[in-house]
Amino acid sequence: MNAEIISVGTELLLGSVANTDAQDVSRALSELGINVFYHTVVGDNPDRLKSAVQIAKGRADIIIATGGLGPTFDDLTKQTLAECFGVKMVFHEEEAERIRGFFNRLGHMKMTENNLQQAWLPEGCTVFVNSCGTAPGCGFYSQGCHVLMLPGPPRECRAMIQSGVVPYLSALSDSQIVSHNIHTYGLGESAVEQELRPMMLEMKNPTLATYAGTAEMYLRLTAKAATREECETMMAPILSRLTEKLGECVYAVDIDSLEAACVKYFADAGKTVSCAESCTGGLLAKRLTDVPGSSAVLLGGAVTYSNSAKEKLLGVPEKLLSEFGAVSSQVARAMARGAMKLFGSDCAIGITGVAGPDGDGSGVPVGTVFIALADSRADYCCEMHMSRFDRDRVRIAASSHALDMLRRWCTGIPIRAERTESLV
Amino acid sequence: MNAEIISVGTELLLGSVANTDAQDVSRALSELGINVFYHTVVGDNPDRLKSAVQIAKGRADIIIATGGLGPTFDDLTKQTLAECFGVKMVFHEEEAERIRGFFNRLGHMKMTENNLQQAWLPEGCTVFVNSCGTAPGCGFYSQGCHVLMLPGPPRECRAMIQSGVVPYLSALSDSQIVSHNIHTYGLGESAVEQELRPMMLEMKNPTLATYAGTAEMYLRLTAKAATREECETMMAPILSRLTEKLGECVYAVDIDSLEAACVKYFADAGKTVSCAESCTGGLLAKRLTDVPGSSAVLLGGAVTYSNSAKEKLLGVPEKLLSEFGAVSSQVARAMARGAMKLFGSDCAIGITGVAGPDGDGSGVPVGTVFIALADSRADYCCEMHMSRFDRDRVRIAASSHALDMLRRWCTGIPIRAERTESLV
Repeated sequence: MNAEIISVGTELLLGSVANTDAQDVSRALSELGINVFYHTVVGDNPDRLKSAVQIAKGRADIIIATGGLGPTFDDLTKQTLAECFGVKMVFHEEEAERIRGFFNRLGHMKMTENNLQQAWLPEGCTVFVNSCGTAPGCGFYSQGCHVLMLPGPPRECRAMIQSGVVPYLSALSDSQIVSHNIHTYGLGESAVEQELRPMMLEMKNPTLATYAGTAEMYLRLTAKAATREECETMMAPILSRLTEKLGECVYAVDIDSLEAACVKYFADAGKTVSCAESCTGGLLAKRLTDVPGSSAVLLGGAVTYSNSAKEKLLGVPEKLLSEFGAVSSQVARAMARGAMKLFGSDCAIGITGVAGPDGDGSGVPVGTVFIALADSRADYCCEMHMSRFDRDRVRIAASSHALDMLRRWCTGIPIRAERTESLV
Repeated sequence: MNAEIISVGTELLLGSVANTDAQDVSRALSELGINVFYHTVVGDNPDRLKSAVQIAKGRADIIIATGGLGPTFDDLTKQTLAECFGVKMVFHEEEAERIRGFFNRLGHMKMTENNLQQAWLPEGCTVFVNSCGTAPGCGFYSQGCHVLMLPGPPRECRAMIQSGVVPYLSALSDSQIVSHNIHTYGLGESAVEQELRPMMLEMKNPTLATYAGTAEMYLRLTAKAATREECETMMAPILSRLTEKLGECVYAVDIDSLEAACVKYFADAGKTVSCAESCTGGLLAKRLTDVPGSSAVLLGGAVTYSNSAKEKLLGVPEKLLSEFGAVSSQVARAMARGAMKLFGSDCAIGITGVAGPDGDGSGVPVGTVFIALADSRADYCCEMHMSRFDRDRVRIAASSHALDMLRRWCTGIPIRAERTESLV
């Protein structure tokens, strides 16, 4: 059983958006144990869509189309796929009623007539109700192929994968794939691969692969078997061998972000944190509060760009600012201590730096960031130099490093507080 | 001249990452006036890659492959494409030297032998130097097709598009495509399309398309002509007709985010802002500080989750908190006024709400958010109800609405401060 995803939308070919729908569908299929061998993207053009469908028919058992189900005149996916598979289109009064109801509930938006175009669906299909939009999806079987169609807007697509696609396909799959992700911070992909290559080469099932993220890297261990339990049994010994080998750089298994790991460790330990941010401008607080339940962990944050805000809110002595400059380890440490005092947290982070693209006029090179962690006993400060990074990447890397300091602090792993040339 | 993008990587088919490389390449090609008709994604599997290349050879003049150039043993793109086009692989001593130099400069990471595999390149190719990684890219012409290869890590790919792909392809293109994006907030895609449909149908060049973002929507007007100037002349009258028609919901033309528009308007007007955030936890400050130059505009921010932080930092009266609850218009207004006073800004935003997934115990429904804007003369407060949204979406929508209030305030457009059921 193998699947192909066909995403329809000129906006994808123009590069206006990334194809996150294909990613979401792929992830769900992988969890169901269905192999995805190809993604194809075509524009809102019926001839090229037909050609892509013909190719997919020849190599896939399941075709999942995303996009082009909407109310506008270039939304042609349903008609085109029905035609390719010799299926008639019929008007679903029930779906029309649901679309009318959606607009009635919204209240402030009038339904326009073109919205009802969405109620035309392939005859005999399974309708996938759209819980957060108007375009219904559907699935049907014809000419040896399962054909499923999902709306393009990512959150509608994502909801329908869970409510429509997973139930539809679960019955068709005869094996399970289970993966575990080993998340690390501070390791390079090729060094890890070199180290693990003999192990990776001899492995057939489970398999092991490395993936590079932004200043992070993870390994995915994947097993395929008849049941989830069998998969787990196959993976358990390898998993413990790997986490031992990679040591303290492993920040979590199956917790897919540093911030989620931090919130979990702090919540488990009953500890609290606060932060004072200059160049990251709220990014660290934002990342922590991305995680549900973070309100028990993060007591508060201060975004203090200006010197006066650093003095007033955080009590950073004017003397430190004038003597060492706003971007210095002394000020980072004072910011952390100030935040800890202000919010009454068990520890606190202070970040100050020059994210760029322009310097701050003080002569400190763009990409220089100081990150301090203070607790009741001590404080630690890391210095990062990221002159080759752009603004976004400097900010992300600095906040990631702060999160790594926090998870080390919380779990009792030594904080690497030496001078750090570059993280990557 | 039309192009196809082939992205190589099992991680894409497993859904571990989105295919942002295809997006980045597509955008660059669109700006060069080169049509992209298909994206294809295949795994790290030479047979399926070969099959995808054979199909692409039959329908594209330019093939751009991304991914699979790295040092690890599943990186097979160069070998496979060279084979498909009958080109020999040769070892480039110059590239090998560059790779060694890269690791020497890094200092803290040792080069492993597998890194030198990356110095094998198709004979006679143009080498694209990798300015932020080790794997070089390349381009060659064979069997009627231009074949270009780029590394998979997004920032390496992005840099090489500008330094390698654009110069290589510029010479091949005979026309220019120029686009303008009209960005709006507060309009639904299908209502706009219904309104503009007669206009869109009669347009051949320039063309007009609508795109839905998160609580935002934009229109892209695209012209194709021999020169950029011709494109502009063709678009100017349509552009002004459109911005007039869409009125105050247009927040900017060619400024691709609400936060960038805000920072520009505030900087142009010499005005300053600060923010006090509860449920958005720093997201508003983060979005504003994503924009270079925001330090002149955003004086500071406070992330105040707890009641005590709201009292202590922002001076929100305890009476308001106990009488109306932390999630109330009264507290949002007091937070905004508190931030304005604390940071001394011209205006300030206060946001308080329940982002979910769980309630805050007060009985206020998940998805309820109050957003207040205060200036020296008045304050405004919007109430949003987003019970159908998840945590992420509630936070994004609330911060977007705050940004829309700010750009309206700064440009003198009335702030819609009535009760808002839902934004979408």
